Amino acid sequence: MEREEALKIVAEQITEHRYVHTLGVMETAIRLAKTYGGDVKKAELAAIFHDYAKFRPKEEMEKIIKEQEMPAILLKHNSELWHAPVGAYLVNKEVGIKDKEVLQAIKYHTSGRPNMTMLEKIIYVADYIEPGRHFPGVEEVRELAETSLNQALLKSLQNTMIFLLKKNQAVYPDTIETYNWLVLEGGKTS
Amino acid sequence: MEREEALKIVAEQITEHRYVHTLGVMETAIRLAKTYGGDVKKAELAAIFHDYAKFRPKEEMEKIIKEQEMPAILLKHNSELWHAPVGAYLVNKEVGIKDKEVLQAIKYHTSGRPNMTMLEKIIYVADYIEPGRHFPGVEEVRELAETSLNQALLKSLQNTMIFLLKKNQAVYPDTIETYNWLVLEGGKTS
Repeated sequence: MEREEALKIVAEQITEHRYVHTLGVMETAIRLAKTYGGDVKKAELAAIFHDYAKFRPKEEMEKIIKEQEMPAILLKHNSELWHAPVGAYLVNKEVGIKDKEVLQAIKYHTSGRPNMTMLEKIIYVADYIEPGRHFPGVEEVRELAETSLNQALLKSLQNTMIFLLKKNQAVYPDTIETYNWLVLEGGKTS
Repeated sequence: MEREEALKIVAEQITEHRYVHTLGVMETAIRLAKTYGGDVKKAELAAIFHDYAKFRPKEEMEKIIKEQEMPAILLKHNSELWHAPVGAYLVNKEVGIKDKEVLQAIKYHTSGRPNMTMLEKIIYVADYIEPGRHFPGVEEVRELAETSLNQALLKSLQNTMIFLLKKNQAVYPDTIETYNWLVLEGGKTS
């Protein structure tokens, strides 16, 4: 699918603010793919659709999680996490994107997972550092992303989890497992 | 088993420094058990033996973890975690303590676990706040322990995980799951 067509489809699903964020993620993901030898076209497509389900009603997302037998633990955790796996499902079903690597990158863009592919890392990091992001620690991750995708991913996971811990908010198990995979096993992409 | 006999047994297993720490944990655990209506005698016994295996050689602990089919993931994580489950095993085998609640309190005193019993919480928190402990944040947990065992446990888990995250050290999955259990389900002790 060409960029313009993809952007047109996603523009109907999200707010203008989120669309500007999506463009930032797209540009950043393309840049990271070029830097690290990733698939530029897949990075572009996954970035464009990563927040496709962001504004779906909670009830619809909950229904999909149950019907598609996604991990039940998702429902115990913050609904902010739901749009990623639900998005991957809907982008396949409604937009017709079948590329498994692209769908996985959408699916894991908020939680991460152990053994993340390079494309999954690129989308996760791009979502964290795109130019519209302004929060403590983002500049350090931007700098790390210039030289090491794994170090950028590690720092963004650390920042996210420390933020959640300080706010008494739950940490999704996949996120800590991704961090553990990076520190214990080096986070090698197969 | 009486206190003097138990202390005599454990004194042969650990350094003097660790013995002083053990006395601190014992006194603190007894106090917490009285405050929260826990079993004072079990708290005393679990506290005395909580670090029984602390100075066993790594090789011996690794052998026990494998032979007793403890979770293999332990071996991926810092060996500092091993003395807790190995201690529970050895205190049963070598000292003859069979009380399951006491053994579980020893087993989970470094990692925690979801659905911790009151005795497990008491030993975990006592180990963290005993008078010999001096590190950033310990005073806040001491104060919380005056009024809420769950709040003291929550804060000690948060402090521990933030410390590990900042040092690029792995976080044992049981620890984050204990934290999630406290924040998502209130940490009610059955």
